[in-house]
Amino acid sequence: MSFEVERIMSVKPTLPAGVRDYLPAEMLFREQILAKIRAMYEVFGFSPIETPAIEREEVLTGGKPPDMIIWRTATSTKHEGDDGLAMHYDLTVPLARVVAAHSNSLPRPFRRYQCQKVWRGEKPQAGRYREFMQFDADIVGSDSLLADTEIIWLMVSAMRTIGFERFKVRFSTRKVLNALAELVKVEPGSSLARDLFRILDKQDKIGRDGVAALLAKQFVAEEDRDPNDPDATESGLGFSEEQIKTVSSFLDITGSSAEIVEQLQQLFAGRSTLGEQAAADLRIICEGLTGFGVPAENWIVDISVARGLAYYTGPVFETTLLDLPEIGSVMSGGRYDDLVTRFTGESVPATGASIGVDRLFAAMEKLGLVEKRKTKTQVLVTIMDQSLTANCLEALRVLREAGIPSEVYMGPDMALKAQMAYALNQGIKFVIFVGQSEAEAGTVQLKDTSTRQQEQVTLPLLAQTVKSKAE
Amino acid sequence: MSFEVERIMSVKPTLPAGVRDYLPAEMLFREQILAKIRAMYEVFGFSPIETPAIEREEVLTGGKPPDMIIWRTATSTKHEGDDGLAMHYDLTVPLARVVAAHSNSLPRPFRRYQCQKVWRGEKPQAGRYREFMQFDADIVGSDSLLADTEIIWLMVSAMRTIGFERFKVRFSTRKVLNALAELVKVEPGSSLARDLFRILDKQDKIGRDGVAALLAKQFVAEEDRDPNDPDATESGLGFSEEQIKTVSSFLDITGSSAEIVEQLQQLFAGRSTLGEQAAADLRIICEGLTGFGVPAENWIVDISVARGLAYYTGPVFETTLLDLPEIGSVMSGGRYDDLVTRFTGESVPATGASIGVDRLFAAMEKLGLVEKRKTKTQVLVTIMDQSLTANCLEALRVLREAGIPSEVYMGPDMALKAQMAYALNQGIKFVIFVGQSEAEAGTVQLKDTSTRQQEQVTLPLLAQTVKSKAE
Repeated sequence: MSFEVERIMSVKPTLPAGVRDYLPAEMLFREQILAKIRAMYEVFGFSPIETPAIEREEVLTGGKPPDMIIWRTATSTKHEGDDGLAMHYDLTVPLARVVAAHSNSLPRPFRRYQCQKVWRGEKPQAGRYREFMQFDADIVGSDSLLADTEIIWLMVSAMRTIGFERFKVRFSTRKVLNALAELVKVEPGSSLARDLFRILDKQDKIGRDGVAALLAKQFVAEEDRDPNDPDATESGLGFSEEQIKTVSSFLDITGSSAEIVEQLQQLFAGRSTLGEQAAADLRIICEGLTGFGVPAENWIVDISVARGLAYYTGPVFETTLLDLPEIGSVMSGGRYDDLVTRFTGESVPATGASIGVDRLFAAMEKLGLVEKRKTKTQVLVTIMDQSLTANCLEALRVLREAGIPSEVYMGPDMALKAQMAYALNQGIKFVIFVGQSEAEAGTVQLKDTSTRQQEQVTLPLLAQTVKSKAE
Repeated sequence: MSFEVERIMSVKPTLPAGVRDYLPAEMLFREQILAKIRAMYEVFGFSPIETPAIEREEVLTGGKPPDMIIWRTATSTKHEGDDGLAMHYDLTVPLARVVAAHSNSLPRPFRRYQCQKVWRGEKPQAGRYREFMQFDADIVGSDSLLADTEIIWLMVSAMRTIGFERFKVRFSTRKVLNALAELVKVEPGSSLARDLFRILDKQDKIGRDGVAALLAKQFVAEEDRDPNDPDATESGLGFSEEQIKTVSSFLDITGSSAEIVEQLQQLFAGRSTLGEQAAADLRIICEGLTGFGVPAENWIVDISVARGLAYYTGPVFETTLLDLPEIGSVMSGGRYDDLVTRFTGESVPATGASIGVDRLFAAMEKLGLVEKRKTKTQVLVTIMDQSLTANCLEALRVLREAGIPSEVYMGPDMALKAQMAYALNQGIKFVIFVGQSEAEAGTVQLKDTSTRQQEQVTLPLLAQTVKSKAE
């Protein structure tokens, strides 16, 4: 025990860069949205788990150097085992650890959702958070395309339940790009394949001709490249005309989901088993989505979807807001069949998607979809006359016992004007006054701050009156 | 983008000491309890905020060396301003920072609740967590004892809403011990006062006579004490007989809340203004609790309550479970009028309480109050005949559209026995089968796994039938 009086000092009440507070108006809205998503995830049979923020770094990175900047932690007085700890940067790797560690007590398939903060150490910059929330749903232990189909169905349902209509879940499969690599005789997973995909990804910036030119350009080995050019744009791939023609016919593919699948099938038919499989997989997912009645305007096959993370192995998903495409994907994921292998050697098929909660809310704010209120309180009990405090508090007791969110005003400024200003500023719908005549009659004055109507109500009828007027 | 196939390595899927996973059964129970507490806090007019896990260490400690072991954080690649960061160890100090930083946009009084993980770096030991959850409610900006009374009312209501009846919120005020110090001519806040309180705190262990003996024993200056004896038991206070008599009459105080207040009043009357104030404060709180109809069996004045943290200045609260007193307080708090001073120089009155969620749940588990279920899923759709998958999925669609949590089984073992085992193991109430005759008739077999009753239901009636049977 320490009873020392705190010395008065001046510390600035500021936050580190890249983290933020949520004040009541934002929190009440966020919790309402998250509750809707949670309810939808549960309708789809997903159950919640939570994992600690602090994990062993080796668990998070697979024992390799981290491929993003992570937050490391250490206690101010070290104990045994306190070395090599870090904060999770996503919820997928912790899920893989949970599946490996608790394999006997978890069902297979395991449908889990998880909504938690994650931490990344990127350079602080405007609008980029280093502590942010993710809301994941994954199915672990099924290699069926039905699982991937369900994840897309879930993504669409989650977006719709929180009020979005103008969005598209865009999906492809990793097999598409790997099959293309196969077709042009580049080994999937090789550094050459990485270069190929990197060049394809530039199409939006440099155009079709730019891509063709880069493919044709002379290849420069990785060790000979300018280390200051992380994109290695100076290296081409030294592709032959035939190789470039194949890539071009790939880039030509466009149209509706069915048309894209059909063209993929034609491109790969007889030339790549993996490619034929990719087309077949996408066709099965499309048929499933149609069968489930998932609104056709909310999903589309898009073979430009690749997803950055190394662990994806099959279908990959992104979600674009049609009215805010520039903010990027708000809900993304894919199949990652090899992530549990890191721990057990056993390959466990898994697929899922993750909502970037903060990005989604920034979008909802921009689109005017956010309704902000500062409190759920419905009634403010004012104290006009200190000698009648007991009568006021009796009204408060009655309201709370009926489950009506209510407060009594408690200063510092007890002027009635200040009490009213508090109610109006907080957006509290009803205000209660008790004067001498009300106290004698066992009643209160109930005023609606929006209509300004006021009426005298007896205590036994107070809760019922508030409830009926609030509707 | 990186498409490298992950190398297979073996990493142990273990957690650091002192942190834990929550699997679905624990999470579903926890979320149900937290939702009840949240709803009760909102009935009392509290609104949620959330603050980042990572703060500037100076903010957390007031620029002094931390008086507990904290978790420090650093990014794996440092950017400007990434020094001196740490994870919050409670939610009270972050609240004080929020109040200082957002004083213009927050109401006064500000009633806020906050439910988040906190981190402490104590030595790992069985049953002690280093990452755990707190659920706080505070009223900032009112120096009225009504605020403290409301916090106790809230504490009792929160405990009762989650099913506890046999508990007591025990409360006192810091003024009591400070007045006692005054009475025996020891300056409150001095190191001598700390020694006095430390000795009083030993009463349970060394008895009344032991306390008196220690008080009489010769005083040893702090710098001359054995540094290996953190309790400094070897030092007495060198008290006179009269001083010891005063302390003894303090320790004699016992009885009901009203009796304790009366005896405090008698002890301090005419001798300590602070002591008279302490008795008056406690009397006002007791009258308030009685007025609000807070069950008398759930609260009591207990002048042995002191609370360890240095920042408390007035009333202090603890909550003891009568059937598990040994686990300590599950919900505690007090008034801390000077915490915001750290940031602004301005003294902002504040009072509140915090639930130690993990400790509370450990208690609920010991008391058999925990109902565990692994999933909210009510219906498992099985697939007996792969050629009828479309019919099965149609039933799934119908159920989900009606908001009934439901799943389709998706392997790996598609034997009907495995599908039934999954349903039973997960505690799923209903199972659906579709055979050839059901498919032809547009019906499904709906089986109740608990009663084993089975009936044929048409798809349009399916959701309604499940809902009525589930009641």
